[in-house]
Amino acid sequence: MFKEAIYHRPKDNFAYAFDRETLHIRLKAKKGDLTKAYLIYGDPYQWTKEGWSNLTKPMTLEGTDDLFDYWFVKVKPEFRRLRYGFELYSQNERIVYGERGFKEKDPRDTSFYFCFPFLNEVDIFKAPEWVKETVWYQIFPERFANGDPKLNPKGTLPWGSRDPKADSFFGGDFEGIINNIDYLTDLGINGIYFTPIFMAKSNHKYDTIDYFEIDSQFGDKETFKRLINICHQNGIRVMLDAVFNHSGFYFEAFQDVLKNQEQSEYKDWFHLKEFPVQPLPEPNYDTFAFTHAMPKLNTEHPQVKEYLLQVGRYWIEEFNIDGWRLDVANEVDHQFWREFRQVVKTLKPDAYILGEIWHDSMPWLLGDQFDAVMNYPFTEASLDFFAKSELNAEQFGQQLSKVLCSYPKHVNEVAFNLLGSHDTPRILTICSDNKEKLKLLFLFQLTFIGTPCIYYGDEIGLDGENDPGCRKCMVWNEEEQDTELFSFVKKMIALRKEYPVLGNYGEFALIETNSETNHFIYAKKSATETILIAVNNSNKDIQLNLPYDFTEKKPIDLWDAKLIKSSKVELEPFGFTIIQIVENS
Amino acid sequence: MFKEAIYHRPKDNFAYAFDRETLHIRLKAKKGDLTKAYLIYGDPYQWTKEGWSNLTKPMTLEGTDDLFDYWFVKVKPEFRRLRYGFELYSQNERIVYGERGFKEKDPRDTSFYFCFPFLNEVDIFKAPEWVKETVWYQIFPERFANGDPKLNPKGTLPWGSRDPKADSFFGGDFEGIINNIDYLTDLGINGIYFTPIFMAKSNHKYDTIDYFEIDSQFGDKETFKRLINICHQNGIRVMLDAVFNHSGFYFEAFQDVLKNQEQSEYKDWFHLKEFPVQPLPEPNYDTFAFTHAMPKLNTEHPQVKEYLLQVGRYWIEEFNIDGWRLDVANEVDHQFWREFRQVVKTLKPDAYILGEIWHDSMPWLLGDQFDAVMNYPFTEASLDFFAKSELNAEQFGQQLSKVLCSYPKHVNEVAFNLLGSHDTPRILTICSDNKEKLKLLFLFQLTFIGTPCIYYGDEIGLDGENDPGCRKCMVWNEEEQDTELFSFVKKMIALRKEYPVLGNYGEFALIETNSETNHFIYAKKSATETILIAVNNSNKDIQLNLPYDFTEKKPIDLWDAKLIKSSKVELEPFGFTIIQIVENS
Repeated sequence: MFKEAIYHRPKDNFAYAFDRETLHIRLKAKKGDLTKAYLIYGDPYQWTKEGWSNLTKPMTLEGTDDLFDYWFVKVKPEFRRLRYGFELYSQNERIVYGERGFKEKDPRDTSFYFCFPFLNEVDIFKAPEWVKETVWYQIFPERFANGDPKLNPKGTLPWGSRDPKADSFFGGDFEGIINNIDYLTDLGINGIYFTPIFMAKSNHKYDTIDYFEIDSQFGDKETFKRLINICHQNGIRVMLDAVFNHSGFYFEAFQDVLKNQEQSEYKDWFHLKEFPVQPLPEPNYDTFAFTHAMPKLNTEHPQVKEYLLQVGRYWIEEFNIDGWRLDVANEVDHQFWREFRQVVKTLKPDAYILGEIWHDSMPWLLGDQFDAVMNYPFTEASLDFFAKSELNAEQFGQQLSKVLCSYPKHVNEVAFNLLGSHDTPRILTICSDNKEKLKLLFLFQLTFIGTPCIYYGDEIGLDGENDPGCRKCMVWNEEEQDTELFSFVKKMIALRKEYPVLGNYGEFALIETNSETNHFIYAKKSATETILIAVNNSNKDIQLNLPYDFTEKKPIDLWDAKLIKSSKVELEPFGFTIIQIVENS
Repeated sequence: MFKEAIYHRPKDNFAYAFDRETLHIRLKAKKGDLTKAYLIYGDPYQWTKEGWSNLTKPMTLEGTDDLFDYWFVKVKPEFRRLRYGFELYSQNERIVYGERGFKEKDPRDTSFYFCFPFLNEVDIFKAPEWVKETVWYQIFPERFANGDPKLNPKGTLPWGSRDPKADSFFGGDFEGIINNIDYLTDLGINGIYFTPIFMAKSNHKYDTIDYFEIDSQFGDKETFKRLINICHQNGIRVMLDAVFNHSGFYFEAFQDVLKNQEQSEYKDWFHLKEFPVQPLPEPNYDTFAFTHAMPKLNTEHPQVKEYLLQVGRYWIEEFNIDGWRLDVANEVDHQFWREFRQVVKTLKPDAYILGEIWHDSMPWLLGDQFDAVMNYPFTEASLDFFAKSELNAEQFGQQLSKVLCSYPKHVNEVAFNLLGSHDTPRILTICSDNKEKLKLLFLFQLTFIGTPCIYYGDEIGLDGENDPGCRKCMVWNEEEQDTELFSFVKKMIALRKEYPVLGNYGEFALIETNSETNHFIYAKKSATETILIAVNNSNKDIQLNLPYDFTEKKPIDLWDAKLIKSSKVELEPFGFTIIQIVENS
């Protein structure tokens, strides 16, 4: 046995309380090394000198990546506390693994074993239920629709002018969104994530001037209230973008610092390195990245904290928003986010808190800070397989296992699964304008675990390189829209809604990957239903034999809405099939 | 290279902010596998398409246990944020390791690398400085000294009667402690940890009746104030025991529940499973272990929380205590402890918060909850080597590496290093009454990293099996005390104080272990000074050649206070030597 490859440590994705009664336990081992694995467990206080009154439970192989197998088991400890270890088998060996290491004989001393001391409810990760059923749509307000030209900022360009620059303005506003709510409900989304809408200087508004004011180019608070109400009436939740890591250059407190320098009452609101404070040629204060116009806020300062928490409260209390997306969330202190969660959840227990973190985010997802992060590892794996062909089918499967096993299951269910955003090139462009690949991306995103988000315009075939290319104006002239793509996305969203197993009410299982044909078969499963999805991610026709016994079943092709008779399917290049099997049907 | 054995994940003992400017980074690899390791690092925002403007820094081999090598490096990121990976060499291979896995060529994409997003000060683990200089003494008040017989509970036995029972009373009290302060100052300790002193039924007082009252058998609040003052005047800090996981059976709120059942206003203060609530034959409510007289408190309930936080405040505000030891701390929710820390540290920023946790405690030691835990892994390793001979010298060294590498360095410096307590057999008994072994235990404890604690009476040779045997009355008749042992411990404490390098101002380094002779050489080092300690943990004379070049040095034998001339030393059975070398002396 390759003992050095075996890993477990409680209180993150390897052992966590799933609910008040259930522990989930994972173990990592070298790929292919273990033939069987069992959990050995018992109550921490039922140990006697004669031996531990322990039980064992078989673990299942949950996933495999390029190097590791992940073993998984659920257990419900009677007294909500557990000591446990692992009984591991390789070809020739049986070993017991616990916190103190590896032994051939089961140690009697409880201190050898791992401990999950108590399943305290308040510590359990809990995200809002509605998020599991949400399909998000990301709107960059300056570019979605111009409904009130009176609000156009100076120098506004005609809507849709080619090749926006970093500082172009097109006059998108709330009225434009209100005018197009029917478009969104027709598409079927039920959540909107707005990039920032507060008073700021730039078109992207990530340089806040006033956190309590709507930027006048978008409308006023009345219009925003109307927008929220219309969204809510249409079953659409609303999430705003909170830029708390840094303010804008023209934020009053920072302007005061520039003006009054050492005498400014706001000097501790930022991380100033020396006086006089000067933005150029190099800022002598901490900033977002190296952007002098985005001075980093000192979120440890009681006044700053109270100010920002008040922002968190205000837009919920006054406008009843449903969630906060937190910009550059990883660079703000954990302590701030813990207090932010308390404030937000006290006010609105089912508000969604989403952090922008691009890397491994376990430390923010332990239940005390965020409900989710932007799932860029999902994005990357999906693009690498479907759009860029940098992963083959087998490698893609491994990456998915890695992504899923790196977080608790209830964390995965509300992960914010985006394919692109205002910070990445358009997915059509990444697909080298191959629309069939793009469709597979949508198919996969909309049948995977997590809460999918569509970046405005991707559904009608907007293209563009990274910012500013990916921030083109939304196209409203139907003749210029890819309506066939729109219909495809709409149909996929409708399927996800109609068959909850396609969303977060089905467990994801990898069924078959083939790197030669580059096909990929997975399933979403509940106790009563299995939906098989086969994808041909190649430019050749392929024939597949679905690895499922259809005897006495009535499998239905959900995409073409017809009964199928055989497990043999033909898939055209970049084709797919979605087959539902109801157990005992 | 054994890639599967390589492990790193940020934000625990593998990557943490040591202070506002410094990151500590660790990597685990299969023992002996890597020949060299480098950190590759750079600012997250200095990435360009031409390549990362990165730097490398060699890592050092910090320690080795039975399976793994631990590599370590410190780095000061200019902008307090870091992306990083590892450049790893084995005999035949060079590999780059990052969050996304292993590559032969250094990936240009920053997302491949690990991220430590920002060193926010408030998130940094910070324990009180004074703890690093403290030698604790644990007093079980019922058994230390009876100074006021008027307070004796009914049925008090004559002091020192053989073989205490679980329910014996001997009348130990505060007056007794006050009378013997000189004994403690003579020994040299400068911190007392009192097991519970609040009103309770048992002799151990872990079954609290009233958290705001002193148990009358110990004295009253006036006497306690006098005791604290005398301690403080003698430079002794005072830590009390907070039993917040459960109350006692006679706690007013629980009595109210028993009396009024479903009508009790306190019914949510506990975890009741059904009505009528009944303690026997099996309690139908959650308890500590299976002890019906210790009902588990619902620390998530706002009233319970406020009550217990008020307890935390009260004894600091009114009595100026210096620390709280938290009983069964692992079974109380993290959320409660986070609020407890806020309350305590706001009132007294340099109070010490010590959790009773016997297992791996990283989730409680991230800066937001405890300053330390009771370091039973240290205890176990030390007893296994010195007392029980269940580990040989090499294995002991491995266990120490494992213990040290499983926490951040500043966590280790305030770890509560005990050899025994009221919950374990007496160390003399574990040493099978071999006093020489016992001395080596004290020697090691008092020269290791952490804050040592002496359990009352161990220093004069009290013996006894586990509770109640380990809770015998302190012996005050000098003729019955092992005064030679006392002098030994006193001298060791004095040395630790005189030579701060022996304590937490020296870095621990394993120099040589030999499992045949069972000797063990380690060093404590600062920039200007090295103290070498060689220990013969065998019953044979041995001759050692200290692996240190004494040329042009003036090494001093600190124990015998004499210059030594040669690196050859003779150690008698269970003998030792402590040699100081001042650099450039």
